[in-house]
Amino acid sequence: MSISAQLHDDLEDAANRMRISAIEMTAAAKSADIMATLFFHEMKYDVAHPKLVSADRFVLSKASHGHACPILYAAWEEAGLLTKEQVMSLRKVTSDIEGHPTPRLNFIDVATGSLGQGLSCAAGMAYVGKYIDKASYRVYCLMGDGETAEGSVWEAAAFSSYYKLDNMVAIVDVNRLGQSQETALGHRVEIYQARFAAFGFNAIVVDGHNIYELIKAYEVARNTKDKPTAIIAKTFKGQGIEDIADKENWHGKPVPVDKIDAIKKCLHGSQKGKLVPQKPLNDAPNVDLHCGSIKMAAPTYKIGEKVATRAAYGTALAKLGDVNPRVIGLDGDTKNSTFSEKLLQKHPQQFIECFIAEQNMVGVAVGAQCRDRTIAFTSTFAAFFTRAADQIRMAAVSFANLKCVGSHVGASIGEDGPSQMALEDLAMFRAIPGSTVFYPSDAVAAERATELAANTKGIVFIRTSRPALPVLYGNDELFAIGKAKILKQSPSDKIVLIGAGVTLYECAKAAEQLEKEGEIINRVHCCVIDPFTIKPLDQMTIVDHAKRVGGRILTVEDHYPAGGIGEAVSSAVADHADIRVRSLCVQQVPRSGSPDELVDLFGISARHIVDAVKKY
Amino acid sequence: MSISAQLHDDLEDAANRMRISAIEMTAAAKSADIMATLFFHEMKYDVAHPKLVSADRFVLSKASHGHACPILYAAWEEAGLLTKEQVMSLRKVTSDIEGHPTPRLNFIDVATGSLGQGLSCAAGMAYVGKYIDKASYRVYCLMGDGETAEGSVWEAAAFSSYYKLDNMVAIVDVNRLGQSQETALGHRVEIYQARFAAFGFNAIVVDGHNIYELIKAYEVARNTKDKPTAIIAKTFKGQGIEDIADKENWHGKPVPVDKIDAIKKCLHGSQKGKLVPQKPLNDAPNVDLHCGSIKMAAPTYKIGEKVATRAAYGTALAKLGDVNPRVIGLDGDTKNSTFSEKLLQKHPQQFIECFIAEQNMVGVAVGAQCRDRTIAFTSTFAAFFTRAADQIRMAAVSFANLKCVGSHVGASIGEDGPSQMALEDLAMFRAIPGSTVFYPSDAVAAERATELAANTKGIVFIRTSRPALPVLYGNDELFAIGKAKILKQSPSDKIVLIGAGVTLYECAKAAEQLEKEGEIINRVHCCVIDPFTIKPLDQMTIVDHAKRVGGRILTVEDHYPAGGIGEAVSSAVADHADIRVRSLCVQQVPRSGSPDELVDLFGISARHIVDAVKKY
Repeated sequence: MSISAQLHDDLEDAANRMRISAIEMTAAAKSADIMATLFFHEMKYDVAHPKLVSADRFVLSKASHGHACPILYAAWEEAGLLTKEQVMSLRKVTSDIEGHPTPRLNFIDVATGSLGQGLSCAAGMAYVGKYIDKASYRVYCLMGDGETAEGSVWEAAAFSSYYKLDNMVAIVDVNRLGQSQETALGHRVEIYQARFAAFGFNAIVVDGHNIYELIKAYEVARNTKDKPTAIIAKTFKGQGIEDIADKENWHGKPVPVDKIDAIKKCLHGSQKGKLVPQKPLNDAPNVDLHCGSIKMAAPTYKIGEKVATRAAYGTALAKLGDVNPRVIGLDGDTKNSTFSEKLLQKHPQQFIECFIAEQNMVGVAVGAQCRDRTIAFTSTFAAFFTRAADQIRMAAVSFANLKCVGSHVGASIGEDGPSQMALEDLAMFRAIPGSTVFYPSDAVAAERATELAANTKGIVFIRTSRPALPVLYGNDELFAIGKAKILKQSPSDKIVLIGAGVTLYECAKAAEQLEKEGEIINRVHCCVIDPFTIKPLDQMTIVDHAKRVGGRILTVEDHYPAGGIGEAVSSAVADHADIRVRSLCVQQVPRSGSPDELVDLFGISARHIVDAVKKY
Repeated sequence: MSISAQLHDDLEDAANRMRISAIEMTAAAKSADIMATLFFHEMKYDVAHPKLVSADRFVLSKASHGHACPILYAAWEEAGLLTKEQVMSLRKVTSDIEGHPTPRLNFIDVATGSLGQGLSCAAGMAYVGKYIDKASYRVYCLMGDGETAEGSVWEAAAFSSYYKLDNMVAIVDVNRLGQSQETALGHRVEIYQARFAAFGFNAIVVDGHNIYELIKAYEVARNTKDKPTAIIAKTFKGQGIEDIADKENWHGKPVPVDKIDAIKKCLHGSQKGKLVPQKPLNDAPNVDLHCGSIKMAAPTYKIGEKVATRAAYGTALAKLGDVNPRVIGLDGDTKNSTFSEKLLQKHPQQFIECFIAEQNMVGVAVGAQCRDRTIAFTSTFAAFFTRAADQIRMAAVSFANLKCVGSHVGASIGEDGPSQMALEDLAMFRAIPGSTVFYPSDAVAAERATELAANTKGIVFIRTSRPALPVLYGNDELFAIGKAKILKQSPSDKIVLIGAGVTLYECAKAAEQLEKEGEIINRVHCCVIDPFTIKPLDQMTIVDHAKRVGGRILTVEDHYPAGGIGEAVSSAVADHADIRVRSLCVQQVPRSGSPDELVDLFGISARHIVDAVKKY
């Protein structure tokens, strides 16, 4: 397709107006020609409804250290969604026009600002568009050259070509300047091209300031089947602006006020309003995933039957898949260990194998949940969620609805050794603002945790365990977020024991022993509490029972000391005089061995609990 | 180079013996031909001194879920370092022959088991070998095909070619089988080749069971200048073993006992002992980096002068570089923000720019510290260390000597917004077993923290701040790990305030106000404590002062609630009846604004402290 000279000039004018607006906001404007052609020629959207489910998606991935977003704000100003006053409030505490965009703005799907994450989110949106919504919307992701150093970009690239996401376009703005020096590859666009081509993209090099070339490239992308497209756009930072163009050390610094007028003069840009974005086809289905709407068939266990909570998670996920086709599962080549394969077996179209690339798995899930398209459950060994810690952190900044289910926690996994043992996962997920952290101790609790997770917005973590342990609760037991279960209590209790997963069973064993062995006079009755959720913690129940028994709490957990159950309980009761807390947990890097040996060796078995109670 | 038919057969025999031993240990043997040719033809090392500083390095990266390491143990058995009895103790709790290798074994430099991390470590070793040791040793990294889905592999690849690490060889064992299904690329070795070539490697495809081809490839690698080599080895899992070869679902499962004899018969393998590894050239220098040996020139500030702790870190790092050429700095294109550029400016040969690839930066540092070659300080925005959370977790399993310095913490960074604010970094680093966590509040403390970090083995984190704040301590003030400073105290104190960084200043301001404002009768005297290290925390000082003032502690921190100062203090005093703790911290995702506005908006300013004290 060729465009008229008039259209070319109109787009160039729009780019220049956006450039000036971005400069007035903050700093050297970037990517103006790319953004103008995208927003006013290529993309289909409705300015009045920026999050229409059928509209094309745009992900600004390159928002490095806050200084690419002014051009995005300028684009929405040009489109008419934002006023000049709004964009000029950039970075002020009273404004949602933040230093890096977040979904506090109605045209932002995912927060950016930690580099290299946008392409995964875009891939998640494109996967849903192609395979779940089966709609015509397309996904555009603008990336920086510097951020392609992030490995997550290549995880996303491999994923996108494996799944033939021909509805996705990655645009790499190669301006060669990093924050502190030239990027590793400078302006060698042929290397970027070779890398994207090797990762299965249709990779095209263009002059990123040439409107004809940009428009042609988008067209080629639209006509490319079974492959995503990467447009490698060679640009010069501050193009057209004397003293700034292609210079280092302008990163994030405002343009001096006395230069702005001179800059405005050298950039022509006539009245805006000539360009109207194309409207989207309304071909994506409406979906209702409101909280409370997803009801799972009840569990069907026998009390005492041995079932691992990870297996129960798989069962529950498959049942959720039965009742709602928008419940999807993602896994990182561990589906036969996390049991997410149960969903794959029953509903293959609701499962996405992400291979061994946890960062991308989480990013894809964040993309998949945008505009309430799906409820995405990700799963892997809990230890390997640390690989995606930054993506999870950013998911919180995106106010995303993300479910993470981590199996194989703690020393109790046994022989595989410390590299496979999650012992810091509670610390990681508890630290996420607004998160919900489930630690179900039996199969019934695990199924209910999964159902509750599907019906709870925000970042949710479910900690599942490897060993098969007896079912404790009846199938009709009611579970709620922030509501603990009292496994055992009596009026003569002298201490509260709090455990979860394997350590709950160790607590119960210890309690049994303590009330039977030795002289009657020395016997100790224990109240045993299963917290069910570690965040929010059932503070009231814990405080009430602690006061009832005389103020002694002992927590026991298959986790390192910091940020785990011990600290959660200590801080929950910190303001109560006369409640004391002691904690048993894994204090050093574990090793290989059998689960029982390790639970004992690392000090969290019934024997150690009995000792600790006697010495309290 | 061609080898004799006899040598070929001897190597094949060795491979078969290793195969059998690995099978006896656990499961389908992998990579036997690759390992035999590497260990008994290519590599130079001393069996009696596996960690000789001049010896070639071998990194087993592919130790996926525990089942590639038997072949490594078999290689060291074949070499004569391990006995049959030792290797047969695999995964037992009494044995260091663990499910995944860790440096508890004297021939392991870095723990593996979390995939995709080995190449970064290998690159760190190779960088040190080429540019710092300037020695002839070479580095070999055996990777799995599945793990190349991890983005960290491509971060490492980009780094290795940028720095022309021609002393490094990556061998990718392409057996096409993942844990739960076929890998994304199956046996399409040409795609692996294209990807490594695009990332700047000399990429060679070989038959991974052909001894001639393997040996030839190593030779080509040795003769390739200015480029790392990737050998893409096409293999079949369980090669030569009926019923197992190339089948899915054998991942990690032991070979049935009744099959082992049949397998042994079909693999010939005569007596061992014919093959002797080549000795290394002793051309790497001896280095002494023992703790306490690195003494830095004293700080030179004036009390009251405004200096950011991040700037003081840069100053200290450069001074450490003055006194020891083995103190190195690594940064992820943020050196002008973290101030690690001060080391680059003074000692460019001691600085490694890692570009925007934090996972690889940490992996390179872990590789660089192996065999006590360097003391490696990594730096970036503290928030972006979450990107490398898994590498840091694994560094602890490697018992590595790793320094992480994170700047721009908390809401007090201001305008850049929540994506740039570290608010979970204390939780992350406190959870690492054996870690030391510094939170210096002024420039003198920051310099001393840096010096102490250089002289402290293990994972060390220093949390630095963006704002320039007044120097509090004299240049001769003594700082020690686990020793708090009392900023302010009087016999009439009624509460202990604990803050660090910006919140320490807010505590001091609040204390001043509380003892001056209003009626004399309502005035409150506060004890203000600067913990200096958050882990270990100075429990004794905190408990003593809390008891002295009547049991009230208020912590204030620029961090989310979980895993931060509040929880650290709560758990430290949890066993003391009559000490209560309340905490002020950031409770939700922050936003853009000025630092002072945000500190106030998110509830951690002096005003909020005064309120909280009055209501306590």
